[in-house]
Amino acid sequence: MSELRWDPLKQNWVIIATERGRRPRDFQVEPESFSGESCPFCYGNEEKTHPEIMALREAGEPNQPGWRVRVIPNKYPALRIEGELKSRGYGPYDVMEGVGAHEVIIETPDHGRALADLSADEIAEVLGVYRARLADLSRDPRLRYLVLFKNQGSCAGATLSHAHSQLIAVPLTPPVAVTELRTCREFYEAKERCIFCDVIEFELAKGERVVKEFPNFVTLTPYASCFPFELRLYPKRHVHDFTLMDDHDLADLAVALKDMLCRLKSVLRDPPYNFILHTAPPRQPRQGKPEFWSSLEYDYHWHIELVPRLTQIAGFEWGTGFFINPTSPEDAATFLREAEI
Amino acid sequence: MSELRWDPLKQNWVIIATERGRRPRDFQVEPESFSGESCPFCYGNEEKTHPEIMALREAGEPNQPGWRVRVIPNKYPALRIEGELKSRGYGPYDVMEGVGAHEVIIETPDHGRALADLSADEIAEVLGVYRARLADLSRDPRLRYLVLFKNQGSCAGATLSHAHSQLIAVPLTPPVAVTELRTCREFYEAKERCIFCDVIEFELAKGERVVKEFPNFVTLTPYASCFPFELRLYPKRHVHDFTLMDDHDLADLAVALKDMLCRLKSVLRDPPYNFILHTAPPRQPRQGKPEFWSSLEYDYHWHIELVPRLTQIAGFEWGTGFFINPTSPEDAATFLREAEI
Repeated sequence: MSELRWDPLKQNWVIIATERGRRPRDFQVEPESFSGESCPFCYGNEEKTHPEIMALREAGEPNQPGWRVRVIPNKYPALRIEGELKSRGYGPYDVMEGVGAHEVIIETPDHGRALADLSADEIAEVLGVYRARLADLSRDPRLRYLVLFKNQGSCAGATLSHAHSQLIAVPLTPPVAVTELRTCREFYEAKERCIFCDVIEFELAKGERVVKEFPNFVTLTPYASCFPFELRLYPKRHVHDFTLMDDHDLADLAVALKDMLCRLKSVLRDPPYNFILHTAPPRQPRQGKPEFWSSLEYDYHWHIELVPRLTQIAGFEWGTGFFINPTSPEDAATFLREAEI
Repeated sequence: MSELRWDPLKQNWVIIATERGRRPRDFQVEPESFSGESCPFCYGNEEKTHPEIMALREAGEPNQPGWRVRVIPNKYPALRIEGELKSRGYGPYDVMEGVGAHEVIIETPDHGRALADLSADEIAEVLGVYRARLADLSRDPRLRYLVLFKNQGSCAGATLSHAHSQLIAVPLTPPVAVTELRTCREFYEAKERCIFCDVIEFELAKGERVVKEFPNFVTLTPYASCFPFELRLYPKRHVHDFTLMDDHDLADLAVALKDMLCRLKSVLRDPPYNFILHTAPPRQPRQGKPEFWSSLEYDYHWHIELVPRLTQIAGFEWGTGFFINPTSPEDAATFLREAEI
């Protein structure tokens, strides 16, 4: 059973997840690498995973081949759906059971294809599965925040090479989200505008950090990028919640996302990367009480954040929270704009 | 010239440091690896670095062999000592010149010896140089915060293998420091006690996370460790500022630090790691106005934080600020306590 522990010094919760029981020697082994035959995410190996939560398939039985996108519980979940939410004190600390959800979205049955290699139609199906799982978990009032992310490449934290993304639902609003939600809230209260909409408008007018503009989406390098070649993909229209996107929106998004991934692959020769889907938190009240962040105006603006893993987070970054980026976002945008894809 | 850019969404400054001018292909090369002959940190190659800022040597001229510990400006500084502090608006953002300092402390002339391999007396000399450089930079009223850190191993961000640490001085108090300083301030205001002293007292009483206790110092694994085998080295006595440590203190600290590094090396087979010296910020008023964090009681408690780099910071961590740690701090402490050193 994992635990959430409160650090009173850093003012943050940490998930101590000992399901894998990692001992000193476990950190010296290379990430698992399965060929198609032994890979638990491939056709024919469905029994190697927990039973599926959902799948897109034409016909046939669950947990058999024939699917196009498949969602399963994580084998080593950071958080589990069973358990009690109550926290308790422990000396100067607090602790609570690790309640939440941890799912894996297998993006394709093909072992050798990355998300960037899928067609826009196939990517739209993956995005539709993201939407379905986010909408489903949003109904559980114990879950305060949902984070959908992808780790591609072992340097980016992936332990299996077969294309997949993950969805973790946490019982508390995490600090990165609190900062962004508070910023949006305060900006909206002061100006009755969305701060993301302001940033997007400014960037479209300036142009020097725009990588590619589509009718309904835009890809750009953030002005204050923490990492070289960091990217954002924004819907131009103000929508706080990704689950409100309809099938037409997802088809457009799939084209923009594929474009972004292919430019990255071309310019940086298939780098490891993380992407994170940032969307407004669920709005279900817990114990009759709505979460502060979900109780007022819909002032958030969903988006995708992509971080190629080209540099290490080192002592300075960890010790301060400041980042040193050796490539200007303007240069990065130029390289990405001119990419041959 | 580097720039500090304000991200209004994440509410943080980022340093865009383009001295190295890193283009896409630059990220595919391996970290530099010099043999003793070509290494700029070795004896006889002093002219390959900028002129030294200070050095410990018996006799002889500056920038010649004969030194034991040597401090030089970073060849590719993230921040420079020249420049103006004024920030200005730029659309929804803010920007200021990258004013600060970036120094390198070469811990030994021996190419093949790591910090853990030095004798306690040699480590005490390195710590004395830390103290001298921190004290010197503390006198510059433009510098709000000083961070002394070490990246050991290329996976921990080191670009040169020769043993060295770095000191960066920034013109703004960074977010990690703001959180800790605010916590200490609020705790002290409420209870007239130091929160770190409370944590240390609790841990010494419990014992299960204590790795090694010395008369004046203690090494432990934090209750809410973000990473496996994360460590803290605390002075038991309440001291807010590292530069107040006298030579006897540093001699004791060197013994404790060497013990910590040797345990880590033994249990995890010489892992890459980062350590960060957390100390109270300088107390010089800037433009006649003291920094909020340095103006009241001396409620901070200096310490060393050590993070072995065994796991990757991936999409979940980056997207939320929450961390998933697969090894309990109690297990880590047991392994480290039982290490043969």
